Amino acid sequence: MQGYFPGDTAVHRHIFIEAVEPAVDAGQYPVKRVVGDTLVVAADIFRDGHELLRAQFCLRDLCRPESEASRTQLLHFDNDRFQGETKLTCNTDMVFVVEAWTDVYGTWLQELSKKVTAGLQVKSELSEGAALLQQALASAQQAPGAADAAALVALLQSLEAAQGDGHRSHALLHRTLPRRDLVRTPPYPLTVDRPQARFSTWYEMFPRSAGSKPGVHATFFEAQARLPHIATMGFDVLYLPPIHPIGITHRKGPNNALVAGPQDPGCPWAIGAAAGGHDAVEPALGTLEDFDAFVAAAARQRLEIALDFAVQCSPDHPWVQSHPQWFYHRPDGSIKYAENPPKKYEDVYPVNFDTEDQEALWAALLNLLLFWVGHGVKIFRVDNPHTKPFAFWQWAMAEVRRKHPEVLFLAEAFTRPKVMKLLGKIGFSQSYTYFTWRNTPAELRAYLEELTQAPMCDFYRPNFFANTPDILPEILQTGGRAAFKMRLLLAATLSPSYGIYSGFELSENAALVGREEYLDSEKYVVRVRDFSAPHNLCGLITRINHIRRENPALQHLQGLQFFDTDNPNLLAFGKRCADNIVLVAINMDPHQVHHGTVQIPADFFGKGAWQRYEVVDLLDGAVYNWGQDNYVRLMPDTQPAHVLRVEKFL
Amino acid sequence: MQGYFPGDTAVHRHIFIEAVEPAVDAGQYPVKRVVGDTLVVAADIFRDGHELLRAQFCLRDLCRPESEASRTQLLHFDNDRFQGETKLTCNTDMVFVVEAWTDVYGTWLQELSKKVTAGLQVKSELSEGAALLQQALASAQQAPGAADAAALVALLQSLEAAQGDGHRSHALLHRTLPRRDLVRTPPYPLTVDRPQARFSTWYEMFPRSAGSKPGVHATFFEAQARLPHIATMGFDVLYLPPIHPIGITHRKGPNNALVAGPQDPGCPWAIGAAAGGHDAVEPALGTLEDFDAFVAAAARQRLEIALDFAVQCSPDHPWVQSHPQWFYHRPDGSIKYAENPPKKYEDVYPVNFDTEDQEALWAALLNLLLFWVGHGVKIFRVDNPHTKPFAFWQWAMAEVRRKHPEVLFLAEAFTRPKVMKLLGKIGFSQSYTYFTWRNTPAELRAYLEELTQAPMCDFYRPNFFANTPDILPEILQTGGRAAFKMRLLLAATLSPSYGIYSGFELSENAALVGREEYLDSEKYVVRVRDFSAPHNLCGLITRINHIRRENPALQHLQGLQFFDTDNPNLLAFGKRCADNIVLVAINMDPHQVHHGTVQIPADFFGKGAWQRYEVVDLLDGAVYNWGQDNYVRLMPDTQPAHVLRVEKFL
Repeated sequence: MQGYFPGDTAVHRHIFIEAVEPAVDAGQYPVKRVVGDTLVVAADIFRDGHELLRAQFCLRDLCRPESEASRTQLLHFDNDRFQGETKLTCNTDMVFVVEAWTDVYGTWLQELSKKVTAGLQVKSELSEGAALLQQALASAQQAPGAADAAALVALLQSLEAAQGDGHRSHALLHRTLPRRDLVRTPPYPLTVDRPQARFSTWYEMFPRSAGSKPGVHATFFEAQARLPHIATMGFDVLYLPPIHPIGITHRKGPNNALVAGPQDPGCPWAIGAAAGGHDAVEPALGTLEDFDAFVAAAARQRLEIALDFAVQCSPDHPWVQSHPQWFYHRPDGSIKYAENPPKKYEDVYPVNFDTEDQEALWAALLNLLLFWVGHGVKIFRVDNPHTKPFAFWQWAMAEVRRKHPEVLFLAEAFTRPKVMKLLGKIGFSQSYTYFTWRNTPAELRAYLEELTQAPMCDFYRPNFFANTPDILPEILQTGGRAAFKMRLLLAATLSPSYGIYSGFELSENAALVGREEYLDSEKYVVRVRDFSAPHNLCGLITRINHIRRENPALQHLQGLQFFDTDNPNLLAFGKRCADNIVLVAINMDPHQVHHGTVQIPADFFGKGAWQRYEVVDLLDGAVYNWGQDNYVRLMPDTQPAHVLRVEKFL
Repeated sequence: MQGYFPGDTAVHRHIFIEAVEPAVDAGQYPVKRVVGDTLVVAADIFRDGHELLRAQFCLRDLCRPESEASRTQLLHFDNDRFQGETKLTCNTDMVFVVEAWTDVYGTWLQELSKKVTAGLQVKSELSEGAALLQQALASAQQAPGAADAAALVALLQSLEAAQGDGHRSHALLHRTLPRRDLVRTPPYPLTVDRPQARFSTWYEMFPRSAGSKPGVHATFFEAQARLPHIATMGFDVLYLPPIHPIGITHRKGPNNALVAGPQDPGCPWAIGAAAGGHDAVEPALGTLEDFDAFVAAAARQRLEIALDFAVQCSPDHPWVQSHPQWFYHRPDGSIKYAENPPKKYEDVYPVNFDTEDQEALWAALLNLLLFWVGHGVKIFRVDNPHTKPFAFWQWAMAEVRRKHPEVLFLAEAFTRPKVMKLLGKIGFSQSYTYFTWRNTPAELRAYLEELTQAPMCDFYRPNFFANTPDILPEILQTGGRAAFKMRLLLAATLSPSYGIYSGFELSENAALVGREEYLDSEKYVVRVRDFSAPHNLCGLITRINHIRRENPALQHLQGLQFFDTDNPNLLAFGKRCADNIVLVAINMDPHQVHHGTVQIPADFFGKGAWQRYEVVDLLDGAVYNWGQDNYVRLMPDTQPAHVLRVEKFL
């Protein structure tokens, strides 16, 4: 509701720019892309009257304010929609604006051509054209460098001699004529991450469980021995639960027991003890130097370390003494512990982000992130971000990325959909999802169709964890090893980022009765595992991760299309990225063989008439001749899925 | 991309408000409603953490800035979506904002209840509650009037006596506690028109053709004789092409001939002559007083006059001499006439809205509108608004509505879809449409589904003209009287506003060969008609307009649902408004009888199981017993459609 009065040039505009894409909430939040992506910008651009328009988008690197904006022309393609594209080459924060102006010269030329074609007199029109040239010349003479002015003089002379070179003169005039009726959109923000923000393969482990003697706490040094195997399985991110000193006061025992025994290691999320807080290492794991050595050893295996960032403190955290004002105090003076009534977490104090000492608290938290960045950590898995202020995360992540744009943040928020989406909008690079609780083909199809299409795909990057220390889903509890295979293959093919938590490869599925919690959860005890145990899934994990690395279609969120089948237990879909096409069919019933027909519409291949094609199953090397309707028969344990690459059209 | 730093309270917010509805382009343009509508406001509202929220929307009348904003509570109904509603009672421009804040008291009470239920100690929690009461008391004591303070003291005393009245104390505390974490959206604009903006029935006529002698120009006085018949047929808007003096220079003859004969009346859109410009009346029609008398006579028949507003001048318009700077001049000094190369309109000069004398020109144009408003004109049909600056219309319409919110504007723009939509966004009350060129059930269904659903239904009000002096569509040229009936019934039932142009009731369909133009178009000649000629459609027109007045379902744009049929020549749909349900089936082939089955899904009636119901055909009174699949047989000339009202469920 602006004031629109004659003389107010801002609203005297002729040209409107609408429906700019890509944009999250009309430009309120950044669109997410990765280095190497092609940025395609499109907009509806139109004006009153019949004049032609020209348009471009200007892309600016916010981290290099001194650098020149790049300019890309937007071309009209249909129904007042303009489009242009450019390659993204730099890991940084950017903005683009769309500009449009009246194409005075092009409009004149078009009308002139029509009249000439119709055999009309064009003497007046030519005098208008001459005036345009004079105007361009005046502009060029004022601009630095006389090259355009000289060229315009030559053009005027050649026009007088009736031998104008239409093409060259067009470009020359566009460059030199003032851009009449110019309008410009507000800036649209864009985050360009490193490619791993989208495509990453996560393995989660408790380093204290890397030992070989039951119940004996392992060190970082011992945990190094696990790295080659994890890397060989094809993972590139190794995520560790908090590695900091664990509190003693109200320490929890096995299975969340209220009282811990003297040998119980405690829960890593009860952060802080005499040995230090969030910037210290649990002495039983080793020293900060040991951690540095662990990071370096992982890097040699091309494994990146992701740290947990859990903003909460055990009663023994140094901050409880040094900064009591950062916690909640009751009128009776006691500090509030965490609770979700009637549940109580006496071993954890939440932090009061709204404290009057807010500036110091927020700065201290930011410094923790920067501290670990300084120790080679470029990925943080943020614990329960939705219970802390959105504004804090937006600020802290922007601050970290300002100096370290390569840093990624994974939001561990299992909460209501709009809250999870907002965390993506305000800057989390990746997010946990509802994948764990989507068990039927229909559920997965609906969920993936939301995740992989605009608006969501522009700001929310899913990371499909098949299990976590907190979640042993019912299907894994009841479906046995076949269910583990099925959920692994789903996670690894549906989402470019996915992960498993240690023990998955052994199909561990002992749960607390009626709960999604592990029995004897590793959150409270030290575990020892034999990863070479019979029937382990390491081979399948290695195979599917190799397939992911070889097939770009599996590295992108978009390009997914589901196919109908005539058996409700079969999920079928295709993913494509340029020439790479992968077709997947999975039996989602871990208990029974299912067979049926996968119906692949011709338009999936962008071909008009129907054609047959050769596919190879990347899991076992079998070759098939497929077409529109394709019979499949899938056995839960021995062949739960086809992962087919289209080799050639026949 | 705001700066977010600790201490910047604007971004330290906990609460987010998203997806506010209704809104056009996120609040950039007003949503359209009419007096009597219920305004339903909804928004996604959520915060970090587990605290409860309260929300309201505040509605303010922009034309009465001194008046208090009305406040309506938004209640949570599902998935973080809040909703509330209020009745719109005043024809005015409004804005609403949505506000939300943390429900400190409710959150405390909820946690307390959970703990009490679980049998936990709540001593600390009670001390927190007491602190809340003290805070509320402090606020109440500072506020004017001590009523709440006294009530709070009583509440504190009753709590001490453990006999608090939960319900009353809840409301009291919400009123008195400060609204913590308060956030407020930007204002969302809203235009509340009079009801005729949505529901209106138009008749277009050239008053000069109201005589009885062929070729003799009629006067306003003679045209008064037509008013009772037009009113009896059920029309409520009588739209007149320009009534101003018609230019002599380059006047067009019959069928747009380049040279006019001495008796040729000229085209009314070539405005301006010695007798005056846009504020004068063509002498052959009478005087300004005669026009006033015509308006008054129409009003007595409950007919409103809509005037044409065509911003263009004949070469004889007074402005050409008095304000030459308002026109386009070529370098050789000549004034540009209108053209669409290679077509030329030598009898019309376009106006240069970008003239350096813009302020005076725009003011003069606004004054023309206000002049005719002063003569009782409250509806303008604006000629080709898309060839004049959007900014002019936005300004001029807002200026008129500021003093005369009852004035309506119909945009006669037949152009590209996004341009037509923008005209609706910037303030046109109604718009011409593509209806005339949508001839198959599939085309109409797709088009109506766009028109009647958000976002378009919130800013674009269609007016379905079945014909205009410029458009005699092919279907009417080839389909004979049956086509006229079919198109009349479609327009009148699909759109709450529709219109016909004089001669439609006589099925006039002589066209220029291969064109959509009338042969001997009334734009250039005087016509005389016998409206009592055999086979006239006046009876059907009267009937359908009566049906429209009796059935609210036909007066609204929304509430439309199409039904599948098994014959591609049959279009079937239902419209509902509260208890009023109208079902329509139309044979869209004017040449052949068609029959088939209309399939009405049970969910149209919002009923779970299937039920039969009684319908009455409002066109002929026949009664049928309908259900899910209903056989219809429709004869082009004798029974082209059923227009059924659901009478009762059986």
